[in-house]
Amino acid sequence: MQNTTLKEKLIEISNAVEPVIKQILTENVDDSTSEMVFYQCSLGGKRIRPALVILSGQVFGGDVNGLLYPAASVEVLHNSTLVIDDIIDHSEVRRDQPTVWKKYGKSMAECVAIDYQASIFSSLNNVNNSKKLIELYAKTLKIIVDGEIKDILFERSGRTDEDYVVNNRYKVISKDDYFKMISQKTAILLQASCKAGAIYANATDEQVALMGEFGFNIGIAFQIRDDMLDIFADEKEFGKKVGKDIIEKKMGNYIILLALEKLDDEGKNFITSLLEGSNEVTDQDVAKVTELVEKTNAKSDAEKTAEYFINKAMDALGKLPQNEATGYLGELANFIVKRSK
Amino acid sequence: MQNTTLKEKLIEISNAVEPVIKQILTENVDDSTSEMVFYQCSLGGKRIRPALVILSGQVFGGDVNGLLYPAASVEVLHNSTLVIDDIIDHSEVRRDQPTVWKKYGKSMAECVAIDYQASIFSSLNNVNNSKKLIELYAKTLKIIVDGEIKDILFERSGRTDEDYVVNNRYKVISKDDYFKMISQKTAILLQASCKAGAIYANATDEQVALMGEFGFNIGIAFQIRDDMLDIFADEKEFGKKVGKDIIEKKMGNYIILLALEKLDDEGKNFITSLLEGSNEVTDQDVAKVTELVEKTNAKSDAEKTAEYFINKAMDALGKLPQNEATGYLGELANFIVKRSK
Repeated sequence: MQNTTLKEKLIEISNAVEPVIKQILTENVDDSTSEMVFYQCSLGGKRIRPALVILSGQVFGGDVNGLLYPAASVEVLHNSTLVIDDIIDHSEVRRDQPTVWKKYGKSMAECVAIDYQASIFSSLNNVNNSKKLIELYAKTLKIIVDGEIKDILFERSGRTDEDYVVNNRYKVISKDDYFKMISQKTAILLQASCKAGAIYANATDEQVALMGEFGFNIGIAFQIRDDMLDIFADEKEFGKKVGKDIIEKKMGNYIILLALEKLDDEGKNFITSLLEGSNEVTDQDVAKVTELVEKTNAKSDAEKTAEYFINKAMDALGKLPQNEATGYLGELANFIVKRSK
Repeated sequence: MQNTTLKEKLIEISNAVEPVIKQILTENVDDSTSEMVFYQCSLGGKRIRPALVILSGQVFGGDVNGLLYPAASVEVLHNSTLVIDDIIDHSEVRRDQPTVWKKYGKSMAECVAIDYQASIFSSLNNVNNSKKLIELYAKTLKIIVDGEIKDILFERSGRTDEDYVVNNRYKVISKDDYFKMISQKTAILLQASCKAGAIYANATDEQVALMGEFGFNIGIAFQIRDDMLDIFADEKEFGKKVGKDIIEKKMGNYIILLALEKLDDEGKNFITSLLEGSNEVTDQDVAKVTELVEKTNAKSDAEKTAEYFINKAMDALGKLPQNEATGYLGELANFIVKRSK
């Protein structure tokens, strides 16, 4: 039925959305600033969120040209959180390139992030059903912030210069806490992407809700896969440093949470002391944690959990009109849970 | 004609807009975050921008209840720039209270700023002529960012950890550069406030433009007055530290620029070496700069320039319907150029 593979489709979408991202980011910006503003988005990425917007819109017959605007907006929204994340986490490298703050300095990065927020909303302002879309994106942005705050408060140590964070850290992190955090930090944006496409294309409220259910559940699976890759990825293929969550002493990683449930006291103590301690985490420490985690069934449990959410997503998708776009979305769901980068 | 003095009117507007600011900032935010999100706006302020929105709307018969939303939005927009400014300038105190980053830490302040941006647009989304207002606010936000970037690149030294800033600083700052910078950093938002009220109240394009001209010109006068107060204010009445621009080695201060034109080489060298040097500026240094500036006619020249822009503003206002609201706006313009805090 499909003449184009998913991979080709994603490249096609990425190529179409690229100039729109550049346009919305740089319009109304001084020439001298525009390169700096576009930089973060010029680093590339899989553009999964724009693809979700466009494919979800196409499920209901939405036109690609119009869908490019909410698609570009969602990518700009996502990248705005990356700009801020990299400042917060002191991350110096993203996609083998210096992060925005590393390249332009923190004060410039702070400024650029504001341009991103403004671009999201001006881009949505002239499309079909703009009012609903603006409401959706504004709400989503706030929920992501709450997720980001939780992620920070899940950290076990560090930020000694930030009393509020130190005093308000979660004492214990339950699986419920974890799922709440990744719902807010990650799944909500994939949900919003799918809803946005459907809203743009005049889908019914029920269809928008089902499309959102699809997006939300692949979002949860996406984050669980992300957590797995953070521990087990092949660093070369992954393109990012493995063990970043351990190095940043983040407890908001599903694999670590599962492993801690299963490890004996010795193993458990090693991981908790490492994360709670003030020493820098070495590559050797990361290797030791990986070794401990591998002794448990955390990896296969996490894989099963991700599969469970993908199945839920596919159930929702099954209730929607079946066409070429739904086909790609199904493939995308399966790609997400199997991806190696 | 007016039963209420300007001061009473401003308090009335401030009281009406306060709960709306709180509402738009904290909706869709977790309970645990909402205090932190509202904190910056809870510090108070003159609420001049919301007053401009409401009064400009009332010139054309706009209803106050509806105007409260674009009014609250503009104050949230303004405060979002203050949150970021305080991070960028490492400012620890605002209105005698710790700044957001000082109280909650930098990572939380970065997060909170995103909530501010989202709130601006969700608040505008359901009011009369929302599309035009969203376009206006998004564009204004980007222009302010360019102004903020210029203000940073006008600094004479510091930020040694930010190569981009160091390498891209303005070599010389002309008066044209200064006026461009304050147009973007300050005047554009007062312009947008006045335009917003008029747009909300269905004013004609010509009326919106005149209202904007009024706002823009009082904005320029406002910033010139701000620069004067930074050097000459009575610190107790001012409520802020005097000489902050000198301490932060900012050349984007009109008084300093005027004084440098008039001073002899010795005085000029003292100021430029102080700003370009890497040493911290002492209270004694600030006193010496003030003394040097007082020897020139910079202060009276700046006062004349501010008056000139207020007159331009009043000309524009004179072409608009004359009613109670126009009366208050005229008084507000005169207050701005005479204010001591």
